[in-house]
Amino acid sequence: MTTLTLPSADDVLDAARTLKPVAVRTPLLRSPALDRLTGAEILLKCENLQRSGAFKFRGAYNRLSRLDRTEFPGGVVAYSTGNHGQAVATVGRMLDIRATIVMPSDAPANKIIKARENGGEVVLYERGKQSREEIAAEIAARMPVSVVPPGDDRFVVAGQGTAFIEAAEQARGEVDLVVVPCGGGGLAAGTGLAIEAVKSRAELWAAEPQDFDDTRRSLASGKREVNARFSGSICDALLAQTPAEIPFSFNRRKLAKVLTASDEDVLRAIRFAFDELRLVVEPGGAVALAALLNRSEDLRGRRVVVLLSGGNVEPNVFRRALDIGESLPVLTE
Amino acid sequence: MTTLTLPSADDVLDAARTLKPVAVRTPLLRSPALDRLTGAEILLKCENLQRSGAFKFRGAYNRLSRLDRTEFPGGVVAYSTGNHGQAVATVGRMLDIRATIVMPSDAPANKIIKARENGGEVVLYERGKQSREEIAAEIAARMPVSVVPPGDDRFVVAGQGTAFIEAAEQARGEVDLVVVPCGGGGLAAGTGLAIEAVKSRAELWAAEPQDFDDTRRSLASGKREVNARFSGSICDALLAQTPAEIPFSFNRRKLAKVLTASDEDVLRAIRFAFDELRLVVEPGGAVALAALLNRSEDLRGRRVVVLLSGGNVEPNVFRRALDIGESLPVLTE
Repeated sequence: MTTLTLPSADDVLDAARTLKPVAVRTPLLRSPALDRLTGAEILLKCENLQRSGAFKFRGAYNRLSRLDRTEFPGGVVAYSTGNHGQAVATVGRMLDIRATIVMPSDAPANKIIKARENGGEVVLYERGKQSREEIAAEIAARMPVSVVPPGDDRFVVAGQGTAFIEAAEQARGEVDLVVVPCGGGGLAAGTGLAIEAVKSRAELWAAEPQDFDDTRRSLASGKREVNARFSGSICDALLAQTPAEIPFSFNRRKLAKVLTASDEDVLRAIRFAFDELRLVVEPGGAVALAALLNRSEDLRGRRVVVLLSGGNVEPNVFRRALDIGESLPVLTE
Repeated sequence: MTTLTLPSADDVLDAARTLKPVAVRTPLLRSPALDRLTGAEILLKCENLQRSGAFKFRGAYNRLSRLDRTEFPGGVVAYSTGNHGQAVATVGRMLDIRATIVMPSDAPANKIIKARENGGEVVLYERGKQSREEIAAEIAARMPVSVVPPGDDRFVVAGQGTAFIEAAEQARGEVDLVVVPCGGGGLAAGTGLAIEAVKSRAELWAAEPQDFDDTRRSLASGKREVNARFSGSICDALLAQTPAEIPFSFNRRKLAKVLTASDEDVLRAIRFAFDELRLVVEPGGAVALAALLNRSEDLRGRRVVVLLSGGNVEPNVFRRALDIGESLPVLTE
């Protein structure tokens, strides 16, 4: 079974070669306002500009491009209403691989429409009545399919690491610190391997939504902790219940710190990105920026890569960021 | 007097070398949704991600970096509440050149604050009571200063052209058509020279706001026409009263077509950029995209570079785009 094989630093370099001709080489942007606020040199890696609007494209492409089509004539399946599902659908269309995206029937209509537009075949199940496992068995009964998990997969994790491979090249010179949003932990784990792959001395931090700090607590306890709540943060992309197994095996050794940010911090960060960066960032994609903007950490003099990991935000959430922003003179001091 | 010297294609190549180490090499993004809608291959040059949030940084930097500081110890002056003024302030700070930005005292407070944050010295005058010329004389009486016009300047126009020099490299292969927003015409003129400089076969089109189509009418009549109104479009960056002289001398020969877009078209384009590109684009910066999205032109099979020229948009205008967007299924067909 390939899914529990651990990725290596070389896997990330391989993934970077695979992705080079197809992924957007997203820009590494600076903002004088952000540098002034933090006293650091902040380099923003804009994965909200990646295909399908999130870094998830990287892992999905790296995984699907290696699929044995003879073994899996039914293509791939992803269980995701979010960025992972959209990425798998998008890549499926690019590579002419059938991509089935399984979503609960009460998922937002625009997510379903979007996945179909992206080329995915959406299968709905009734939450509470059917289990994911039943659905999976049903799909696999037709033709053998390969399940693409968002975190526990060697090639997915390796793919996520490629954003930092690019950032390290674009930064031209040493990076002291990398801060990434963290849900299941795949992006953090891939980034840790990428740091190793390019022989960077950079320290790795993650950022989680307040009350969804399973990775932070897991690092403290040494075992994979579970969040008390499964919903209730605007960071819908980061609401994993517990750290994924493969990512955690890396993150427990490599992550030096995990920050948290409140919903209000996140809305301020989205507003900052609107005003100063002219970027649309989704809540989960802004959590690392938010954790730095609330200035709990002293970053003075450091050279910091911050991942803006996604940009698929609902208009209503964006309106809240525009509203909250009106009272934030501190952000432009 | 340097200001009425005409720029050449070589000036644009010179400007590109000057800007390379300092300007953001803004990404050239594609959108599958946009390609589907237009039947074309659309390449979006994202100058909303440029320093100071607009392509105007290019012209300002190219001009100020060539300033004779002995001749102009008082630095530079720009008359602009908009992107040109912000760009001159930003570059002034970068190059340690005193930059005076002259604005009417009833300019929006955030524009004044922003120019000061960017390092500009803001001089306010009372509209109706004092003339720009009086203010200019007052400033020049202290120390000799160089006025940086937004359009009628060899090095400003050459600087604006560098966005297409980059785009042509990034496009890897022939471009059939370039479409740029048009106010005074400096970006169009610089782009025309850039097309010549890189020996591209691309056709050049411009896009103007409805009722502010002075360039379109001037091309038809052969002389510089004046708009009937001076305000009343959301495209505040494009409300020049008449085509600037130097740009028009190029545009009259080089521009193959001028499209127009209504405020509603522009709001739809801003919404499209939010949903599909994860970019914040200002009304004037979105007018070329808007003119293509309203599908008055058949672009099938063409390879088209579209300039998104700026991203400095007021939250209230952005809210209108979020509102209007709700009823636009056509954009995701």
